[in-house]
Amino acid sequence: MSDSSNVTESLPEGELLVETLDRPWERLEELAEAGDPEPLAAFLDSLSAGDQALALSRTDEAHHQLVLKTLPIGDAAELLRHLSESQAAEIIDSLTPEDAAAIFQEMPSDEQADLLGDLDEDQASAILQVLPDSEADAMRELAAYNDDVAGGLLVREILRFDRSTKVADVISTLSENADEFRDYDVQYAYLTDEHNRLVGVLPMRNLLFARRNDPVADIMIADPLSLLDTTPLDDLIDFFDTHHFLGVPVVDADGRLLGVVHRNAVDYEATRAAESDFLKSQGIIGEELRTMPLFQRASRRLSWLSINIVLNIGAAAVIAIYQDTLEKVIALAVFLPIISDMSGCSGNQAVAVSMRELSLGLVRPTEMLRVWLKEASVGLINGAALGLLVAIVAIVWDGNPYLGLVVGVALYANTLVAVSIGGTVPLLLKRFGFDPAVASGPLLTTVTDMCGFFLVLGLATAMLNRLI
Amino acid sequence: MSDSSNVTESLPEGELLVETLDRPWERLEELAEAGDPEPLAAFLDSLSAGDQALALSRTDEAHHQLVLKTLPIGDAAELLRHLSESQAAEIIDSLTPEDAAAIFQEMPSDEQADLLGDLDEDQASAILQVLPDSEADAMRELAAYNDDVAGGLLVREILRFDRSTKVADVISTLSENADEFRDYDVQYAYLTDEHNRLVGVLPMRNLLFARRNDPVADIMIADPLSLLDTTPLDDLIDFFDTHHFLGVPVVDADGRLLGVVHRNAVDYEATRAAESDFLKSQGIIGEELRTMPLFQRASRRLSWLSINIVLNIGAAAVIAIYQDTLEKVIALAVFLPIISDMSGCSGNQAVAVSMRELSLGLVRPTEMLRVWLKEASVGLINGAALGLLVAIVAIVWDGNPYLGLVVGVALYANTLVAVSIGGTVPLLLKRFGFDPAVASGPLLTTVTDMCGFFLVLGLATAMLNRLI
Repeated sequence: MSDSSNVTESLPEGELLVETLDRPWERLEELAEAGDPEPLAAFLDSLSAGDQALALSRTDEAHHQLVLKTLPIGDAAELLRHLSESQAAEIIDSLTPEDAAAIFQEMPSDEQADLLGDLDEDQASAILQVLPDSEADAMRELAAYNDDVAGGLLVREILRFDRSTKVADVISTLSENADEFRDYDVQYAYLTDEHNRLVGVLPMRNLLFARRNDPVADIMIADPLSLLDTTPLDDLIDFFDTHHFLGVPVVDADGRLLGVVHRNAVDYEATRAAESDFLKSQGIIGEELRTMPLFQRASRRLSWLSINIVLNIGAAAVIAIYQDTLEKVIALAVFLPIISDMSGCSGNQAVAVSMRELSLGLVRPTEMLRVWLKEASVGLINGAALGLLVAIVAIVWDGNPYLGLVVGVALYANTLVAVSIGGTVPLLLKRFGFDPAVASGPLLTTVTDMCGFFLVLGLATAMLNRLI
Repeated sequence: MSDSSNVTESLPEGELLVETLDRPWERLEELAEAGDPEPLAAFLDSLSAGDQALALSRTDEAHHQLVLKTLPIGDAAELLRHLSESQAAEIIDSLTPEDAAAIFQEMPSDEQADLLGDLDEDQASAILQVLPDSEADAMRELAAYNDDVAGGLLVREILRFDRSTKVADVISTLSENADEFRDYDVQYAYLTDEHNRLVGVLPMRNLLFARRNDPVADIMIADPLSLLDTTPLDDLIDFFDTHHFLGVPVVDADGRLLGVVHRNAVDYEATRAAESDFLKSQGIIGEELRTMPLFQRASRRLSWLSINIVLNIGAAAVIAIYQDTLEKVIALAVFLPIISDMSGCSGNQAVAVSMRELSLGLVRPTEMLRVWLKEASVGLINGAALGLLVAIVAIVWDGNPYLGLVVGVALYANTLVAVSIGGTVPLLLKRFGFDPAVASGPLLTTVTDMCGFFLVLGLATAMLNRLI
């Protein structure tokens, strides 16, 4: 599990460090039962991150405990770090607080804080009680930040020196602790004053050319860029977009250095945010893994479905109003679901483009008119194409040109409505602080369904003598 | 635009380097027309990445040219690098090949290759003709790789030394070219033999403690990990998940060093892939920005809609078959869209969970049975809840308990069908090499619509004498 920079030569494509076993969890259980740390660690090391996750997800709690107790503690921590947070939390919840605390101490502080928030509350407080007070306090402090601000993403494990330290002393500290510092992955040391306030950063390579007896303050970059602990994720993404740094120091309101947010952590959260938008748009709120208990999975999904069915029934009530028309022109019933589905498709395209433009900053939440004009023009073209197609189908099938006229015009007009709503609703939701990924879909579908049913059945009622 | 490590003190939240102008594009145009590089560069520097993108997207081609010609060339390249690839390509397409080539030469090689692939073909070949032959060849070579393999993501700008170089010579090279190398963002130099084959990596910090007259080979890590140029993105993500490295050297089939893939580039592609799954699931294939020409936007969206409407009409044909039943029990028409929409919702939840489990490696494409069992159990619970609800609504509204029975049982059974299909279709598509994000939705909707209409109308036909 350790970073082994010198073990393997380049491997042929597709075999990248992967021992392709059909059922890696069986071998994992065997090795855990055998109880010998080395072959177990070596086996896990040979698996890809995906297969590690797979193997663990297919073994039971008893084996999780056995695997994590058998592995060298650093390897156990490393293993959990490769899993998704929900899977790692599931496994840590099944350990004794003592075992869990030991593994926690091997993790970088940002991941500790993240994971702590995902645990069962009882388990989390039990772990904090087992930990030394100073560590527990520090962990509580970081865990108090959300994942989406700088304070929740920082690592405290950084190279930190007083600005008066001599170059020679820094070099010897580095050399004596080379093994520990290798894991810090940083090219900078951070220099503070006597109140622990950040005063400068020191690019490690500057040490190469410095006089050994000078204080590091002489070769530091003074007044470096830093961010407040409350800086939100969007601004962090922006920061690393604009600057090439691998990390940025984070300070509190008094300028005291809290730690460093690494580019990795921000990129990781950005990917998670994008993935979670996809999941939320499809009605999965909160992480779901199929290893979770059945009733938890079912009830989480059901809460989203319940809202949708109520909205759906509301929209379908429009059909009930026009029951008389429908009774006389039963062919209309065939076209109602088509109008509803196709308007949903067109509208969701507009939702997707708006969400993307919002995330790229290409549109502001206040620019409803601009988006509406852009969408309406697409709606006019695509509505015409779809309306024409469905009109032809209706005429060919039913033989009555007026039926074609009604469903064609209705789909045309409703496509226009759908893209108008789909394009602008995410802006409106964002502006009023709602999450467009969760709420755009249901809102869109309800309004376009109602409107589509009104259009088809209202037009048909108006032209009823032509349709019978 | 340059990385200014020492200009700003920590800024209060929300003001991070952002000059909040209502209409930043107006100021941009003014400054471009004034033609003075410094204030223009300073203004752009003061904008967030989002506002840079916004300002450029709201100015016309003539002003794009003016902005990019006025800016110092390095800043122009930097500006384009902050934009999304489609927006950058749009702007480069509007420049003369000479101006475009000059800007290209300032970009890192992986971004050159990416961008080249997104340009208009004529513009791309015109730019290659303007460039010096050696650069054009190298760029063609990289552009030949897809974005989703190591060869398409590597940078050629790395520190590369022959293994016989002396430590002192490496240090003096570094010191003489400190400015250039600062942008390389790497902690390693790469050592090659006389055939340009990778033989070792040299952690820069090892130089600190080395004897100046030794060859660097003495302090290198021999036989380092490296990846083939054909390694796919999934394996790269896996690699950086398993190893803490910031970059990995990439070699061709003969072991020759081609360049380095940085963790950033992989993270960036991973985020793009997640975003693009969201867009594709909503029917946006290929990047769309609302600044693109209307007919391009409309026709791209229409090609997806056309497939859907044909599938939709096919599904609705089921209703036509049962027209007689519908004529006798017109209340059924109210429930057809509800059954269709709700089955879509339930099925899409299962799609989303399967896509996520596939990407985490928690399920293999062959494990259809396992996924089906997990989904069916959720379907049994949620189908019962939804079916019961819709049955009650039908009974309260219509007064006929048999109508409630028909629509309730149909929604129950169709929820089961929807989650079964939604859960397994992404696996099936993946197994046969299709993109689950694009194809799962339409397939799911068509099958569940057909099946839902069959269930409602078939059951109603069987119980017709109870319903009238």
